[in-house]
Amino acid sequence: MKILVINGPNLNMLGKREESHYGALTLNDLEDLIQNEFKDDKFEFFQSNHEGEIIDQIQNAPTYFNGIIINPGGFSHTSVAIRDALEVCKLPKIEVHLSNISAREDFRKNSITAPMTNGYLSGFQELSYIGGILLLKQIFDKINCQ
Amino acid sequence: MKILVINGPNLNMLGKREESHYGALTLNDLEDLIQNEFKDDKFEFFQSNHEGEIIDQIQNAPTYFNGIIINPGGFSHTSVAIRDALEVCKLPKIEVHLSNISAREDFRKNSITAPMTNGYLSGFQELSYIGGILLLKQIFDKINCQ
Amino acid sequence: MKILVINGPNLNMLGKREESHYGALTLNDLEDLIQNEFKDDKFEFFQSNHEGEIIDQIQNAPTYFNGIIINPGGFSHTSVAIRDALEVCKLPKIEVHLSNISAREDFRKNSITAPMTNGYLSGFQELSYIGGILLLKQIFDKINCQ
Amino acid sequence: MKILVINGPNLNMLGKREESHYGALTLNDLEDLIQNEFKDDKFEFFQSNHEGEIIDQIQNAPTYFNGIIINPGGFSHTSVAIRDALEVCKLPKIEVHLSNISAREDFRKNSITAPMTNGYLSGFQELSYIGGILLLKQIFDKINCQ
Amino acid sequence: MKILVINGPNLNMLGKREESHYGALTLNDLEDLIQNEFKDDKFEFFQSNHEGEIIDQIQNAPTYFNGIIINPGGFSHTSVAIRDALEVCKLPKIEVHLSNISAREDFRKNSITAPMTNGYLSGFQELSYIGGILLLKQIFDKINCQ
Amino acid sequence: MKILVINGPNLNMLGKREESHYGALTLNDLEDLIQNEFKDDKFEFFQSNHEGEIIDQIQNAPTYFNGIIINPGGFSHTSVAIRDALEVCKLPKIEVHLSNISAREDFRKNSITAPMTNGYLSGFQELSYIGGILLLKQIFDKINCQ
Amino acid sequence: MKILVINGPNLNMLGKREESHYGALTLNDLEDLIQNEFKDDKFEFFQSNHEGEIIDQIQNAPTYFNGIIINPGGFSHTSVAIRDALEVCKLPKIEVHLSNISAREDFRKNSITAPMTNGYLSGFQELSYIGGILLLKQIFDKINCQ
Amino acid sequence: MKILVINGPNLNMLGKREESHYGALTLNDLEDLIQNEFKDDKFEFFQSNHEGEIIDQIQNAPTYFNGIIINPGGFSHTSVAIRDALEVCKLPKIEVHLSNISAREDFRKNSITAPMTNGYLSGFQELSYIGGILLLKQIFDKINCQ
Amino acid sequence: MKILVINGPNLNMLGKREESHYGALTLNDLEDLIQNEFKDDKFEFFQSNHEGEIIDQIQNAPTYFNGIIINPGGFSHTSVAIRDALEVCKLPKIEVHLSNISAREDFRKNSITAPMTNGYLSGFQELSYIGGILLLKQIFDKINCQ
Amino acid sequence: MKILVINGPNLNMLGKREESHYGALTLNDLEDLIQNEFKDDKFEFFQSNHEGEIIDQIQNAPTYFNGIIINPGGFSHTSVAIRDALEVCKLPKIEVHLSNISAREDFRKNSITAPMTNGYLSGFQELSYIGGILLLKQIFDKINCQ
Amino acid sequence: MKILVINGPNLNMLGKREESHYGALTLNDLEDLIQNEFKDDKFEFFQSNHEGEIIDQIQNAPTYFNGIIINPGGFSHTSVAIRDALEVCKLPKIEVHLSNISAREDFRKNSITAPMTNGYLSGFQELSYIGGILLLKQIFDKINCQ
Amino acid sequence: MKILVINGPNLNMLGKREESHYGALTLNDLEDLIQNEFKDDKFEFFQSNHEGEIIDQIQNAPTYFNGIIINPGGFSHTSVAIRDALEVCKLPKIEVHLSNISAREDFRKNSITAPMTNGYLSGFQELSYIGGILLLKQIFDKINCQ
Repeated sequence: MKILVINGPNLNMLGKREESHYGALTLNDLEDLIQNEFKDDKFEFFQSNHEGEIIDQIQNAPTYFNGIIINPGGFSHTSVAIRDALEVCKLPKIEVHLSNISAREDFRKNSITAPMTNGYLSGFQELSYIGGILLLKQIFDKINCQ
Repeated sequence: MKILVINGPNLNMLGKREESHYGALTLNDLEDLIQNEFKDDKFEFFQSNHEGEIIDQIQNAPTYFNGIIINPGGFSHTSVAIRDALEVCKLPKIEVHLSNISAREDFRKNSITAPMTNGYLSGFQELSYIGGILLLKQIFDKINCQ
Repeated sequence: MKILVINGPNLNMLGKREESHYGALTLNDLEDLIQNEFKDDKFEFFQSNHEGEIIDQIQNAPTYFNGIIINPGGFSHTSVAIRDALEVCKLPKIEVHLSNISAREDFRKNSITAPMTNGYLSGFQELSYIGGILLLKQIFDKINCQ
Repeated sequence: MKILVINGPNLNMLGKREESHYGALTLNDLEDLIQNEFKDDKFEFFQSNHEGEIIDQIQNAPTYFNGIIINPGGFSHTSVAIRDALEVCKLPKIEVHLSNISAREDFRKNSITAPMTNGYLSGFQELSYIGGILLLKQIFDKINCQ
Repeated sequence: MKILVINGPNLNMLGKREESHYGALTLNDLEDLIQNEFKDDKFEFFQSNHEGEIIDQIQNAPTYFNGIIINPGGFSHTSVAIRDALEVCKLPKIEVHLSNISAREDFRKNSITAPMTNGYLSGFQELSYIGGILLLKQIFDKINCQ
Repeated sequence: MKILVINGPNLNMLGKREESHYGALTLNDLEDLIQNEFKDDKFEFFQSNHEGEIIDQIQNAPTYFNGIIINPGGFSHTSVAIRDALEVCKLPKIEVHLSNISAREDFRKNSITAPMTNGYLSGFQELSYIGGILLLKQIFDKINCQ
Repeated sequence: MKILVINGPNLNMLGKREESHYGALTLNDLEDLIQNEFKDDKFEFFQSNHEGEIIDQIQNAPTYFNGIIINPGGFSHTSVAIRDALEVCKLPKIEVHLSNISAREDFRKNSITAPMTNGYLSGFQELSYIGGILLLKQIFDKINCQ
Repeated sequence: MKILVINGPNLNMLGKREESHYGALTLNDLEDLIQNEFKDDKFEFFQSNHEGEIIDQIQNAPTYFNGIIINPGGFSHTSVAIRDALEVCKLPKIEVHLSNISAREDFRKNSITAPMTNGYLSGFQELSYIGGILLLKQIFDKINCQ
Repeated sequence: MKILVINGPNLNMLGKREESHYGALTLNDLEDLIQNEFKDDKFEFFQSNHEGEIIDQIQNAPTYFNGIIINPGGFSHTSVAIRDALEVCKLPKIEVHLSNISAREDFRKNSITAPMTNGYLSGFQELSYIGGILLLKQIFDKINCQ
Repeated sequence: MKILVINGPNLNMLGKREESHYGALTLNDLEDLIQNEFKDDKFEFFQSNHEGEIIDQIQNAPTYFNGIIINPGGFSHTSVAIRDALEVCKLPKIEVHLSNISAREDFRKNSITAPMTNGYLSGFQELSYIGGILLLKQIFDKINCQ
Repeated sequence: MKILVINGPNLNMLGKREESHYGALTLNDLEDLIQNEFKDDKFEFFQSNHEGEIIDQIQNAPTYFNGIIINPGGFSHTSVAIRDALEVCKLPKIEVHLSNISAREDFRKNSITAPMTNGYLSGFQELSYIGGILLLKQIFDKINCQ
Repeated sequence: MKILVINGPNLNMLGKREESHYGALTLNDLEDLIQNEFKDDKFEFFQSNHEGEIIDQIQNAPTYFNGIIINPGGFSHTSVAIRDALEVCKLPKIEVHLSNISAREDFRKNSITAPMTNGYLSGFQELSYIGGILLLKQIFDKINCQ
């Protein structure tokens, strides 16, 4: 399976952020962990602090990938534009959060992008990605079997 | 690993609820699916429409189990008492939802119980449980390795 | 017609509650009144202060009854779980309130269970039940004639 | 019994409105249905799209009628003036709605006129009127027996 | 001075409304009281339950009158249209309320028409009109002296 | 094309209202401008300060006209009844506002009638009508071509 | 009649405040104006920027005065303590505002002290006081005649 | 005096909950402390995680007891049904909280059950019970002396 | 023990306030009652209608007293400044209310000063003080025993 | 006339979005349609998913263009920065929306950019652009004639 | 330059308040620091816990001073009266806060007094005063140079 | 000291924006003013309308600079992503605003980025930068002295 992993703003700073929320890995560590865990799948890792670039990536994804894992970071709570991009994109797609957003500041409790994904995971630190990919693969298999 | 799977109100009616949200399996089918998927683990499946019984189960869980998977159903949005029970209970615990609650009615968008769990998954239908158990086992391993 | 009449919390205390809102009858009086008014129908009267037992009753109702009259009492304003149980249950069902809830405290003005019933009556004291049963029987006839 | 039946704005368009909410009858059909159902009572049917005319009717009603059935339509949610007229009028009076307003748009969930009536019924389509009249007659008998 | 006194919906029912809020006079009594108190002024008394007629009167007032006393009744809290009519009309104009609206139901605490008048009085029962006219005459004199 | 142009409360006062919002034309000027601009179309111009009369007109429009241009004025923000009338009426219909309502007082920012029209224009003074009619004619042509 | 006139914070600065809201008189001018207008009455003029002193005055007023005119200034919108003092005090009492508070900033639209007075006037600049005293004298006469 | 002490959900977990809020005693310790402090009074200690059982107890209390001490725990903030049960019950009754609820999460700041008790104490840990019982006994004495 | 009892605005008017909320005692009676009940303790009774004086007292209290009983009256709901003074002051301190504030107007339901005290009692009329002092003495003993 | 047409995020995906809201044309089709309709005008079509690029374009527009047509897409509801850019830019400018935003999700009902344009059109699909350009040209002519 | 430095409630307790918010200096230290930093300017330091005294000072300031530095403390969030006093006072005036109020409790995030000052600084502990005075001097120079 | 000065969207338009809020200087003038005022410090001036570029700059700042001055412009009120970037960055950093944001539109009153800075200044036009840099240098000195 070819999977696009999109990481939003400040996720390139992993390892320097509050460990109790975000874990101790750097983004590089996280990417290695993913690739090692799923050796037979092909990943493209994309990180950007630019809302527009993330939208561009989502729009182009169907040409190159079979599914999307997205952690929109701070954009989860403010970007109608990313929400719309996800709505248009018909790939299976899953939103992941390192921290348990339901347990944080009020403005971080709701994701306005999550409703446009198949589902979301929150709170498992790096395991949010691992779990998300496992689920994405199962959704992908299910679709292909029909 | 010994895992308690708690299903809240109306989840015994699975198979009769709206398929686009809840999938086509009955609760029995779901339990079989889980047991088959994780043959080496021991599961106790508990379903109740009674808030108090769910609290009782959570309180007693540490004596018999290593972790909890909970789908509080409608209680997710109203029960401070289950939230408090989860807070007291020190087992690893994960909240799961069949439907993508961020995409439903306003009163269903927030879970007041989720902040007291390690994390939550929402929107993957029966796969929410499978994914939740996988993550629970990894969290359990991590704790035991420390 | 076989009708299940569900009365929620504190309705067993009728006769001791504020008469201007709830009328002067006891629950027993009310049940006798109903049975006398509809001599040819079979009623099961169920009262409980336990949310879970009310949900159980609603779930089991289709096996034994042709319709439901429900006065959820205080649960009308707080129970997503009863709402969900009513949504799953495909019997004709009518919500009744003794007092005119639109004219009471703010938290009592809205019923979150009523949207999942065929309709509701509020403010006619014991006549809310009589009127509700008359309407239930007509809905039942209509369905059977189609 | 002499009963005034007031229908508010757009209820003259029945038969052309969404059938799942309002049923299939025209206003004429509805009025015939009522008169046939209650052959011994005398009805005056009044429909208007004008808030002021409805208030005039309510103010004059005590001279000619023993009770009022009112469906204020869209004015239910906006008219303090009709609410005040109902408060002044000491006849027994019942509010009816064809659709289940608790299950519709947020601005339609509350009626600001209903608190000034004896009670209200919502969701039974044409049966809301039939049930409302039955209840009005019983309230009328009760008052006269005292 | 030629003064138009506009009374909104249900003010023709004075004498039948709750005395603690509205006083014991009928509208006729009130009008006589006013005319007796101000023998040298010419009054036109206009009462209507129709929002549109009140707007018509306000629009036509500058041709015939030097000032307006208005008690918009229930329309005070709902009518943007009367507010706009008052804004366009350049006569001195004063809003009066029999009851102390700041001490009543929440939806009656604010007047959306009052900001478009020179000022308002609330709570003095029939004296609200007497006081309002006295003030209107002084405002009129002030303008004419400039 | 036969077009009904409905103007709500206080629009007969154009020319006396604040020019920066409403422009300098009178309602007569505006009507002449429209007729001159669209010489081959037949217009009926209807203005009323009465909510009920506007509803009557909308209800009768399908018998005589092919489309509606409506500026509900102050009723845009308060009238559920006009909204319902527009919903029932199946003609193409367009809402217009002289001023840019998004830039005015909070209570004027939203129109509750606009959702029941094909679309709306706001802020172009008299050009809102001209633009609205142009669009109405194109919608009309499109429907007729299908 | 012996009348206590209480002016709250910043009213000693009259003459230096925005003229369109507060008029051009100084507090001294205003007091002279009042005394001249009502030559036979005895006034005590009290101004303070101290909430506590205003409460002290209200509490002591019944010993020395027959009525109170109060302009609580900025305390109108924030002082539960002055509200409570007015509630305890059984003298006739009237609240006055120089500016039309319904037409100003949102936080100034409501007075939390006004509900504890007989009534209030707002928007007549210095005439608010004159009108208020006239009304106070009439209320006083009415009470004494009973 | 015969006193029913009701403890709501999770209070059986005392000793395992956050000590800064709830103190260090177990529920057993707390009950012993109470009995020792008030040797001449008879206590029934009832704890339940079930809303319905708490309602049952309140309803039955007047037959067996002279007063109620209740700590509704998490139900304080959600249960209209317990509130209604307390309203019906005419015994003297006092609500107690171990923690200072005004200083905790927003959803815990208000108790919807407290308004139906004689009064409440919050923040004194186990002393909330001791103080509550002392006050209950004084209220009881006062009633009996009248 | 040396205890400062602070009473906020209008509490010097006790005996003249609504008896159902505040009881029948005057402030003098209340102070005598307290001193008689606790003969071995030394009390300073301080009442003021001035927010600033109450703050001064709280700031100076640690020099002369071992604990504080405070009834901030109307300031409970508005004074951030008293809240801050209480936060700085490290004495044991308890807030008391004569009436049950949870059962009164919305703006009186929350106390913004209570979170900065050890705990609070509300609804026991004069017994709120007696109970508060008893608890204060126990907290004081507890601290001294450690 | 030289006109800049700015299309915000996801408008490059036209033709793949929900047809009932956005119509069936692609962005290319739409641009061709515009150019054909207005053969004598010169258009620059700019689409970007990047908020910053849209701001850059608006800032530079006065050098190269006589007017702006902007569909800010999802940024309409979130971008204070685009709003500020529009405020600074003194060209005539019109906001257009393909769908009727007043009839969609709550967060899409208001545009925070529209108040900084001359006016806006919403709901006419591709005709929103055609109508918008017609109006822009008339505004442009009007300015140039003065 | 002659500068009045006003410190509101509890700022006399500096040194005893939470150091992370307020720094380690006492008010005396702070005043010495200021005087040492600006040797050529004349300062009057005024601290009060009394809202009224602060208003008095602001009103009198123009007679004796060229500018005001004010830290209203807790009054920043509640005092309309101080806001009004600042509005009347035409001196240059700057609001300062020791702590970063945007990062504290919700009720402390907004200052209702700051809009009536030239500007404000928040979060620099004692440097907020130093910076504020520097800016005040520059504003003063600018005015004098014009 | 090496200082990065970040200016957000539309600040490159200074000199063309409303002078009463933003002053008369261009961005170039402002940068020259700063450099002249602090001749011994090294400044990098960065302006961008792109949220992502501002985040990139903040992330890279610690490698090249000792402190940050940031005016996030319109992003202050909407960008969780910039807030997060500031939180990760451990340099001393100060937010500045030309206008007094507490005195502007409601949506501009709060900054969601300011809580992640050491402190902020608002309302001093170009002096906000000068004052901000002075404070930044003092904070820098303080840190280095420890």
